[in-house]
Amino acid sequence: MLFCVEMTVKIPLDSDPVKMDEIKRAEKERAIDLQKAGKWPHLWRVTGKYSNISIFDVESNNELHDLLMSLPLFPYMDIKVTALSQHPSSIH
Amino acid sequence: MLFCVEMTVKIPLDSDPVKMDEIKRAEKERAIDLQKAGKWPHLWRVTGKYSNISIFDVESNNELHDLLMSLPLFPYMDIKVTALSQHPSSIH
Amino acid sequence: MLFCVEMTVKIPLDSDPVKMDEIKRAEKERAIDLQKAGKWPHLWRVTGKYSNISIFDVESNNELHDLLMSLPLFPYMDIKVTALSQHPSSIH
Amino acid sequence: MLFCVEMTVKIPLDSDPVKMDEIKRAEKERAIDLQKAGKWPHLWRVTGKYSNISIFDVESNNELHDLLMSLPLFPYMDIKVTALSQHPSSIH
Amino acid sequence: MLFCVEMTVKIPLDSDPVKMDEIKRAEKERAIDLQKAGKWPHLWRVTGKYSNISIFDVESNNELHDLLMSLPLFPYMDIKVTALSQHPSSIH
Amino acid sequence: MLFCVEMTVKIPLDSDPVKMDEIKRAEKERAIDLQKAGKWPHLWRVTGKYSNISIFDVESNNELHDLLMSLPLFPYMDIKVTALSQHPSSIH
Amino acid sequence: MLFCVEMTVKIPLDSDPVKMDEIKRAEKERAIDLQKAGKWPHLWRVTGKYSNISIFDVESNNELHDLLMSLPLFPYMDIKVTALSQHPSSIH
Amino acid sequence: MLFCVEMTVKIPLDSDPVKMDEIKRAEKERAIDLQKAGKWPHLWRVTGKYSNISIFDVESNNELHDLLMSLPLFPYMDIKVTALSQHPSSIH
Amino acid sequence: MLFCVEMTVKIPLDSDPVKMDEIKRAEKERAIDLQKAGKWPHLWRVTGKYSNISIFDVESNNELHDLLMSLPLFPYMDIKVTALSQHPSSIH
Amino acid sequence: MLFCVEMTVKIPLDSDPVKMDEIKRAEKERAIDLQKAGKWPHLWRVTGKYSNISIFDVESNNELHDLLMSLPLFPYMDIKVTALSQHPSSIH
Repeated sequence: MLFCVEMTVKIPLDSDPVKMDEIKRAEKERAIDLQKAGKWPHLWRVTGKYSNISIFDVESNNELHDLLMSLPLFPYMDIKVTALSQHPSSIH
Repeated sequence: MLFCVEMTVKIPLDSDPVKMDEIKRAEKERAIDLQKAGKWPHLWRVTGKYSNISIFDVESNNELHDLLMSLPLFPYMDIKVTALSQHPSSIH
Repeated sequence: MLFCVEMTVKIPLDSDPVKMDEIKRAEKERAIDLQKAGKWPHLWRVTGKYSNISIFDVESNNELHDLLMSLPLFPYMDIKVTALSQHPSSIH
Repeated sequence: MLFCVEMTVKIPLDSDPVKMDEIKRAEKERAIDLQKAGKWPHLWRVTGKYSNISIFDVESNNELHDLLMSLPLFPYMDIKVTALSQHPSSIH
Repeated sequence: MLFCVEMTVKIPLDSDPVKMDEIKRAEKERAIDLQKAGKWPHLWRVTGKYSNISIFDVESNNELHDLLMSLPLFPYMDIKVTALSQHPSSIH
Repeated sequence: MLFCVEMTVKIPLDSDPVKMDEIKRAEKERAIDLQKAGKWPHLWRVTGKYSNISIFDVESNNELHDLLMSLPLFPYMDIKVTALSQHPSSIH
Repeated sequence: MLFCVEMTVKIPLDSDPVKMDEIKRAEKERAIDLQKAGKWPHLWRVTGKYSNISIFDVESNNELHDLLMSLPLFPYMDIKVTALSQHPSSIH
Repeated sequence: MLFCVEMTVKIPLDSDPVKMDEIKRAEKERAIDLQKAGKWPHLWRVTGKYSNISIFDVESNNELHDLLMSLPLFPYMDIKVTALSQHPSSIH
Repeated sequence: MLFCVEMTVKIPLDSDPVKMDEIKRAEKERAIDLQKAGKWPHLWRVTGKYSNISIFDVESNNELHDLLMSLPLFPYMDIKVTALSQHPSSIH
Repeated sequence: MLFCVEMTVKIPLDSDPVKMDEIKRAEKERAIDLQKAGKWPHLWRVTGKYSNISIFDVESNNELHDLLMSLPLFPYMDIKVTALSQHPSSIH
């Protein structure tokens, strides 16, 4: 089941850079794991912004919520979730 | 080069149903052609709305504009275009 | 799996009242069927508006989309879909 | 009498984690009490956000206000209150 | 129990003036009845707009909804309902 | 002359509680004085928010501005002012 | 007493041009009268829009409302009214 | 003196196509004249929309307003005007 | 050449009052100078807000920008600039 | 390939002025380099705001993103990116 998730990262300018680098490292690691697990089939950077547009493939809303909550950058993100369905004109 | 394109279709309620069915048929045909040509790699229906979230893969802004203008439903659509870039954490 | 769906009905003032009454009748019938089928566990009227806040219980996004598209009043509605998950403090 | 209440929690990133954990613990306790008392019949997590959509069942606006003010997380929340009425198509 | 209700009237410019005058006459009559019945204690015109800010005093959300639906101009109005509670600094 | 004034109070979470309690005490005192003077005939709490909807009765815009500026909580408030006029259907 | 009034004119594209020219003629005449009477001290066109930003000088909200309602183009306008007060740094 | 002008064209779907083609032809002619006269140095199409982002070079606000009002498509356009100034980092 | 400029002042609550008083003093002095120079013909306080609606009379966009940047409170202000033109119904 | 990029700079009021001057110096230097390289053909200041409207000429979305990320002020900016295409009425 697919969801489009838009994540905008807002890191306070006075954050501790060392701490943030560690969180970003963990975020990247987590993102790669989820992509390899097939849960996060698409991850694109929005040109010009510290945001991404992603597609998640999950079994349920609960699973999606738990995955997003598990992202180290979750507390720093505005997240918009849009449920997706099969489009009648899609060849996939 | 990827773009995320959100299309919301607004067909006037007093439209001629026969004419609209013809336009929708042509729209589906055009969408299938563009998907087969690799220009429109992803086309998802937004759950609960007459809208879609799509990913286009084109050579330039001009090509994207021409493709979107060529859609029979173009005059009936609100379109939002978001340029996408490679995400540093994407495994693709 | 639960979704919160907000539906605002906008019927053009110059609509044919006979036709609209028929559509509203069919809408009520459809809503009652879906409630009895357990798909539409909650349906509340927003005080002062021709809108409702509903909770749908479905197996997937696709099912939700098909249910909403099957509503006779669908073409007359602005619909907002919010995916819901289990709340850690809920006793249900 | 039913109200739909949407609560979005915004905890400053530089908050004292120990203090916040205590407030969250008290919040959960209070939420469970109110649910058991029948005042808070529904509490759902919005997928992907630190927000909930809730249904409150109270005797008056005043009672609703006092209940919401009594939530330990009240100072950290954006709250939207929507009055609900009986829907003519509801089977409940 | 008090509610603040903001009503903005939008009458299509091509409406039949005779019909609209009749509806406005019925609206005024209904408004006066409800004021005399104590249900509509305050009715103010928003300066410069075909809108009003009103205070309703009702027993329940359902009663408020029925009253608003009973207004002849209801189909022509955008309505915003805000539940009100006792203010701790009010001397009334 | 009447104005509807909506005041939303936003007190920084890291404010000095002692200082704020003093300001709130002074605010309440000032509000009571103005109500007794007939300048502030209505003061209602917006259910679920640290906001109020008020009606002021003043001689001029200048007087209203001075009254609002004199409120101890003024620096902590978002204020929306709406000029009101006599409604042709009002029985008052 | 001063008010800033922003008026945006929206004339339906399928309006009768003869009728509209007559209304615009009457509007201009009315605007000139009110300016000469000192009620409408400033009337500026917003560059690039069928809108104006005006300053009205009136005795009360009621007078302002009646003046605006008396404008032949009133039914075709979105109007925003902002009450103005004496600025402490103004030399006038 | 430069202005950034964003124009979004909204042509009613039930417009007479012959009449609109004539207006569009005249619009193109007018746009070319103004570009050649140096008044309209930049005219770009917004990808995916019937909109443009333009730069006008004029002597005054009045001149800009008259130029925009002279565009045959003016009645069909939403226009946003942004005054531009010399940027301290611009090499032009 | 006229511009309508709306300035909303937002001074952080934890600012140094002595420093701010000095900046406000300098702001008032600068405003008076510009009014006397004829550059700032109108300066009105928005009732109930720490905002003003002003009219500037300048030779160019650049001049307006430099004047606004020269205001001591510039860093604390949200500013909206609207270009104004001669209104065909204005008697001035 | 052209993009319109609107950048609004928001520097916290309590920033270290020395550090910010250094970042602004580096920003100006970077901007001049990119203009000379033909990547940033137009850079205009929005009158009255710490914002600019720019036109970038790049080979791809990725290149645009990398250029914008390379701006020293990037962390302090709200950025809006609009893809541009050839306008059929443009003489360029």
